[in-house]
Amino acid sequence: MFKVTVRNNEYSKVYTTNKGKNLLDLLRENGFYIDSPCNGNGTCGKCRVKLILGNNSSARAEEIKVLGREALESGYRLACRYHINSDIDISIDQNDLQAKILTESIQRSIELNPLVTKVYNVLEKPALGNSISDYDRIIIGEFNDNPFHLKNLELLRSLHDVIRKENFQVTLVIDSSDIIAVEPGNTVNTLYGIAVDIGTTTIAAYLIELTTGKKTCVTSLLNPQKAFGADVISRISYIMQNEHGLEHLNTLLVQSVNICVAMLCKQAGILPADIYAMTFAGNTTMQHILLKVNPSNIASAPFVPVFTSVVKVKARELSIDINPNGTAYFLPGVSAYVGADTVGAVLTVGMHRQASTSLLIDIGTNGEIVLGDKDGMYACSAAAGPAFEGANIKNGMGSVNGAINSVSLKHGITFTTIGNTKPLGLCGTGVVDLLAELLEVGIVDETGRIDMAWKPDSPEQEALCERITSTDGVNSFILCKADETLSGSEILLTQRDIREIQNAKAAIAAGIRVLVKNAGIWFEDIKNVYLAGGFGSYINIDSALKIGLIPVELEGRIISVGNAAAQGAINVLTSKALLPVAQEISKSIIYIELSNSKDFNDYYIDCMTFEQEI
Amino acid sequence: MFKVTVRNNEYSKVYTTNKGKNLLDLLRENGFYIDSPCNGNGTCGKCRVKLILGNNSSARAEEIKVLGREALESGYRLACRYHINSDIDISIDQNDLQAKILTESIQRSIELNPLVTKVYNVLEKPALGNSISDYDRIIIGEFNDNPFHLKNLELLRSLHDVIRKENFQVTLVIDSSDIIAVEPGNTVNTLYGIAVDIGTTTIAAYLIELTTGKKTCVTSLLNPQKAFGADVISRISYIMQNEHGLEHLNTLLVQSVNICVAMLCKQAGILPADIYAMTFAGNTTMQHILLKVNPSNIASAPFVPVFTSVVKVKARELSIDINPNGTAYFLPGVSAYVGADTVGAVLTVGMHRQASTSLLIDIGTNGEIVLGDKDGMYACSAAAGPAFEGANIKNGMGSVNGAINSVSLKHGITFTTIGNTKPLGLCGTGVVDLLAELLEVGIVDETGRIDMAWKPDSPEQEALCERITSTDGVNSFILCKADETLSGSEILLTQRDIREIQNAKAAIAAGIRVLVKNAGIWFEDIKNVYLAGGFGSYINIDSALKIGLIPVELEGRIISVGNAAAQGAINVLTSKALLPVAQEISKSIIYIELSNSKDFNDYYIDCMTFEQEI
Repeated sequence: MFKVTVRNNEYSKVYTTNKGKNLLDLLRENGFYIDSPCNGNGTCGKCRVKLILGNNSSARAEEIKVLGREALESGYRLACRYHINSDIDISIDQNDLQAKILTESIQRSIELNPLVTKVYNVLEKPALGNSISDYDRIIIGEFNDNPFHLKNLELLRSLHDVIRKENFQVTLVIDSSDIIAVEPGNTVNTLYGIAVDIGTTTIAAYLIELTTGKKTCVTSLLNPQKAFGADVISRISYIMQNEHGLEHLNTLLVQSVNICVAMLCKQAGILPADIYAMTFAGNTTMQHILLKVNPSNIASAPFVPVFTSVVKVKARELSIDINPNGTAYFLPGVSAYVGADTVGAVLTVGMHRQASTSLLIDIGTNGEIVLGDKDGMYACSAAAGPAFEGANIKNGMGSVNGAINSVSLKHGITFTTIGNTKPLGLCGTGVVDLLAELLEVGIVDETGRIDMAWKPDSPEQEALCERITSTDGVNSFILCKADETLSGSEILLTQRDIREIQNAKAAIAAGIRVLVKNAGIWFEDIKNVYLAGGFGSYINIDSALKIGLIPVELEGRIISVGNAAAQGAINVLTSKALLPVAQEISKSIIYIELSNSKDFNDYYIDCMTFEQEI
Repeated sequence: MFKVTVRNNEYSKVYTTNKGKNLLDLLRENGFYIDSPCNGNGTCGKCRVKLILGNNSSARAEEIKVLGREALESGYRLACRYHINSDIDISIDQNDLQAKILTESIQRSIELNPLVTKVYNVLEKPALGNSISDYDRIIIGEFNDNPFHLKNLELLRSLHDVIRKENFQVTLVIDSSDIIAVEPGNTVNTLYGIAVDIGTTTIAAYLIELTTGKKTCVTSLLNPQKAFGADVISRISYIMQNEHGLEHLNTLLVQSVNICVAMLCKQAGILPADIYAMTFAGNTTMQHILLKVNPSNIASAPFVPVFTSVVKVKARELSIDINPNGTAYFLPGVSAYVGADTVGAVLTVGMHRQASTSLLIDIGTNGEIVLGDKDGMYACSAAAGPAFEGANIKNGMGSVNGAINSVSLKHGITFTTIGNTKPLGLCGTGVVDLLAELLEVGIVDETGRIDMAWKPDSPEQEALCERITSTDGVNSFILCKADETLSGSEILLTQRDIREIQNAKAAIAAGIRVLVKNAGIWFEDIKNVYLAGGFGSYINIDSALKIGLIPVELEGRIISVGNAAAQGAINVLTSKALLPVAQEISKSIIYIELSNSKDFNDYYIDCMTFEQEI
């Protein structure tokens, strides 16, 4: 048997294996995602690893060809060609794994050590001469030294009945070093948690089986607070102007969370009482509202939230219908506008551990941007407004059935809709795609103006001419005619819509530049660009570059990472060691206030146009 | 200037003083109670201290005479004769101090370090560039590292308004390392706590100013649960037989505690919101009922309580009307029948720190007995019944106005009543006094029988003859005739009453013997006997010895220590370091179950008679 030590930025792990084992097979069997398009034929070179210690003598012809002598001499080998015949110590380059690691391997590499665990305990039965209290009886053994203070009244009140119900066999539910509940009998196999990302627009909830770390099911809802405005400022205004505004918005949010809990329980066939932990990511305002904490000062300078640290409370204190002894953990945030969602996303993409510089862009109603590496990070929040979520756009809509989510004008007018229905409107990705295409063909010029006098370059473009129109003094491009749509009304992109997008993209682009300047680096120094959030995940990256949302200099390094904020909440739920890591991230990120920044204003004006700077 | 180091079992302290200072004066000025009946004249020898280091050369004639050469050579000196002319290191024998220390010096020697403290904090005001959260703003400085988790929802919800109310000047309220509340402005001088002893019969509450440790005022109430039986067994039966029995008795107790809080606040002119901590001593059943925890198993073998450890909960979780963020601490107990009241009493008398053996007897409805020293303690609970509290006695009553509390038959029949009113009945001390006197004159014989054929020894006793009577077959002694009493009815001690007292005193006396046997010691080894509780404090010690409640061998070593349980709760309130000490005491006491003890049954029968064993 040989020992194989696998290292990367994050950890090192040791495996044992038989002589002759193929290294790529070993890594895959142990949950590493190794890209190998040639399927282990030694031709693509993607499975290269660096041999730090061990037998580096017998490089194969394929390796010499694919890696080159220099790389071989530095210790690089192809995992697919390497057969283990000594103890070895290898390093896997984090960056080589990232393209896929985000949805698979990072999750896999997290050690399962959930916030809440269960322990089964067969108690000694009371007798004369063994009449210690019920509580002392359950804490015999590993929990003997703690807790010093009994704090859990609910537990004390139920203990008498619970331990006698299954003849002194009990299951302890442990959260940190506290026994938060005791269940009769052996229930160690039934233990669930829920991770929730509360966005200004949508709420997404994930049921996680804490005994395995498995994502059991997922659900989402629109945030019912939408009726009180699309952005956090409108919500806060409502709270400030109405005596019971906070209670009202809190109740709506709690109800939505409870609906998610009920839906997840129904899908999975479990009971709310089986759920003992919840983690919440979400922007700072939503965290405040869910905790019924006054967010007023978030709305005006100097933008002071009441809290940004980790909050840990009983779920029942928030009227959330999981087990009454269950705990609700709130991920920490950075500032009023860089919230726990951003910290969750940083945790997910792992940029706080990486030696190379990463840029994270989470575009929701605001655009939170983080730039940095393991030695430090800067963050800002660009007030993009909700245009990318389809709001404030004449025919804009959320990413639901009927929304046009991609557009091409290359061969006439073609588009796709979510759900493949007749179109009803444009979601954010559709708007960006359409605008990018209009810029490409020249119907919209570099200043963002619709050129009413536009002339086609080719016969294929002629059909576009009739789509350029002006109604009540507002110039527009008609994407769909009335008879093509579900509603029977035209779907337009107006001059005003384009201005909204211009403002939004200029804010994000300028925010990126401010961080780059603060960090004292160049665009070339950024090795990875992570696009997070629903919009970020589904956007056509070419279109985003075309409209200047992301600097063109970053082309080729952009990865969509899905709902990284929610994944951060899931990761904390399944690995409690990440909670202090999240706290550390939240404290170490340097927040740059853009409203106070002359640079931002200058860049913002520069970024308003659609000129390509390269 | 010289340094004087004073040591005892408990601590060492260093004082500085000028050359020539009298040692007794120095000790007294620093709060040590040193008994000195001769008032510093060097004749009584009570102020002796042991010189460990320092000038031992110039013993005076008085010291040689009073202490003897041997003691002098061992380093003993009279403090009143010793003038400091070098650095010295002295030891004060704890036992020398005890007679008075219980009501004065133990309290004085406790360092004021209350469970809850306040800190005034002038915060930096928010500004652009200083927009950290409200919570991070208040924890700047000494609290910066903790707590990692925000747990206090009430505090988070009020923080926004509180810190702005007095222009960013706040007072933090600290409990352990947690900030439990924040008040606007500087309120450090207003901080109170309440210590409560919940007895089966009475509830006593003490308001303590936590900034000084001063006992501000005291109040007490009868436990309204008395309507459900005089002892804990009756209360538990009620709970077991009635669906909402526990809720009902809990409500009665919480109401009484709230009445005490209100009365104390009114007396002191403070607000309930000024009270941030409460400590509760009380027997195990009362602790369970106040926490609304099922006490059923306390009533039957093997007598298993739900908890005996320290409990720490928010007062509002118990519906107790102090500050909503205030904390309720429950002192720990030992077993079903040796409760937190006993642990509190041990803490007060300090027997857990003493090298010599002590016996503590706390006589309430049950008699809890503790025997031991710093190396170990045994405890038991003797089911004396409520006879000593005046219950189950024909004309018995509590210690309130009109109760006969002392009796003499030496010169005719004389007695005193509480409040100096006409008599209404007999309280426990009156019953014991009367019985001791009847034994003395021979009207009651050694077996406890009223001698209906009794003849007086002297003319003075002749008046007693007519008081010996028999009604409906029950023999009695008439203490007061109908026309002498407040009610217009005779006050009798019946043969049945005497049997009650015999049972009760036999239980206590046998319990003492069981502990002595378990400890493997003799009565002579017991250096201090502490009588705690209301009955123990007011009882005529000679009468207690006469009826055999306390073994006559212990005569001369008996000290009444008042409500030592309540004093224990006060001590914990004012010195948080005593909470882990109390927990340690509760865990180290070895509980002896008497219902399981053949020895107890044997001793019990032996102790039924009124024979004096010496």
